[in-house]
Amino acid sequence: MSIGIFDSGIGGLTVFKEISREFPQADIYYLGDTARVPYGNKSKETVIRYSIEAANYLRSFGIDALIIACNTASSYALDTLKESLDIPVIGVVEPGVETALRYTENKKVGVIGTSATIRSNSYRFLLEKENIEVFQKACPLFVPLVEEGIVDGEIAELIIKEYLEELVKKGIDTLILGCTHYPLLKKTIEKIYPHLKIVDSSQAITDFLHRENLYFEGTGKRKIYITDESENFERFKNILVGDNIPLEKIELSKLCTL
Amino acid sequence: MSIGIFDSGIGGLTVFKEISREFPQADIYYLGDTARVPYGNKSKETVIRYSIEAANYLRSFGIDALIIACNTASSYALDTLKESLDIPVIGVVEPGVETALRYTENKKVGVIGTSATIRSNSYRFLLEKENIEVFQKACPLFVPLVEEGIVDGEIAELIIKEYLEELVKKGIDTLILGCTHYPLLKKTIEKIYPHLKIVDSSQAITDFLHRENLYFEGTGKRKIYITDESENFERFKNILVGDNIPLEKIELSKLCTL
Repeated sequence: MSIGIFDSGIGGLTVFKEISREFPQADIYYLGDTARVPYGNKSKETVIRYSIEAANYLRSFGIDALIIACNTASSYALDTLKESLDIPVIGVVEPGVETALRYTENKKVGVIGTSATIRSNSYRFLLEKENIEVFQKACPLFVPLVEEGIVDGEIAELIIKEYLEELVKKGIDTLILGCTHYPLLKKTIEKIYPHLKIVDSSQAITDFLHRENLYFEGTGKRKIYITDESENFERFKNILVGDNIPLEKIELSKLCTL
Repeated sequence: MSIGIFDSGIGGLTVFKEISREFPQADIYYLGDTARVPYGNKSKETVIRYSIEAANYLRSFGIDALIIACNTASSYALDTLKESLDIPVIGVVEPGVETALRYTENKKVGVIGTSATIRSNSYRFLLEKENIEVFQKACPLFVPLVEEGIVDGEIAELIIKEYLEELVKKGIDTLILGCTHYPLLKKTIEKIYPHLKIVDSSQAITDFLHRENLYFEGTGKRKIYITDESENFERFKNILVGDNIPLEKIELSKLCTL
């Protein structure tokens, strides 16, 4: 039994790592679309197209479930993929919302993500159905900060405050990190706002898989595919999941010659 | 007679604007590859592939010259495009170097750009041939800052200092903005480092076209194409070149369905 995980780039590796740990027997195939990262500044139509291409590729391994570890793709392409595929398709939004519902006491929840994720209102929609007051904020500088490795220090703290101060002033007690890059800023966010309960997609999704009683038996195979070579990706992968899983470059869209 | 200009996204519009002003009679076709922006974090192979697709598209309008208004694409794909196309292909690197050579007095020049541009050493190579001492620095946060509209204020100044302080300490008297996004940070850079002479691609390239005696007579047609809808692009285009040139969305790579 095998799981496919896809993300626009690096961020979903936080999900890959958690799932690898929780389901050691599962065969896990990861695809990072590094040739077209980021998705967060693209239109809905384009995000859906890219997600379909990624799902098609992972489906060729005969996966039994597909996890969309990218919040932007989860927000825009989940319904399309669910309708088109005959295997469970799991995004990061629903698990994140379920965890936030367990965390919040005052029913005021903050949601941060890319411009596309926030514009989609995907978190807001599910949270408001549960009578939660939602405060959203797009944080487009967080992804480049993380990709740059600037996760603490003066610049990181200044930018975190610039984005989060208004949500904190609204009295939120829980903050959903609606982007798989953001867990790398978690410690610095906690240092500035120690009273916040923080929801991290990677943990939320493994909790969700357990609750849904999804089990994955296999040979423990691990494969990581990317669509473009990237030093950042390789460095980050080695830190997060070690260097014993090699990267393999594949192509999702047709080549064009002059 | 017509000119094609291409860039990964928004930045090249600074070049479009300058060329439009200097060559009012020329027919000018602009292509921004907003579906795959940014190029600066992609590999050489991928940047070449995307540049070929863009050049192919613009060539269909029968252009008489192609300007690569993206520093990353100029650094990686210029030679390939020059060899393959039978029209003049002009990148931003050579014009920028020529302007810097006229500006510098102490022969110490700083070059800033995306990770890919800096890694390519395209500016360094040409400058060192002229016995210039070159100090380079990749500034990957500048593009998202500009795309976010954060071009002045505390955060912008802090990040500018973080990147530029070491170059200034080396004693540079001239700084090449090796990315078409960066001219939008020019005023803030000048405020912090008023003694620096700053080379801006858009001005450098029009100076270069004049020096090369390239003239473009036509009907003054202006067309702007993008590969993905983008609010940022539209806002920026309206500020920079007005709202009387409509945006048209086109597709460079094949669609894939489930």
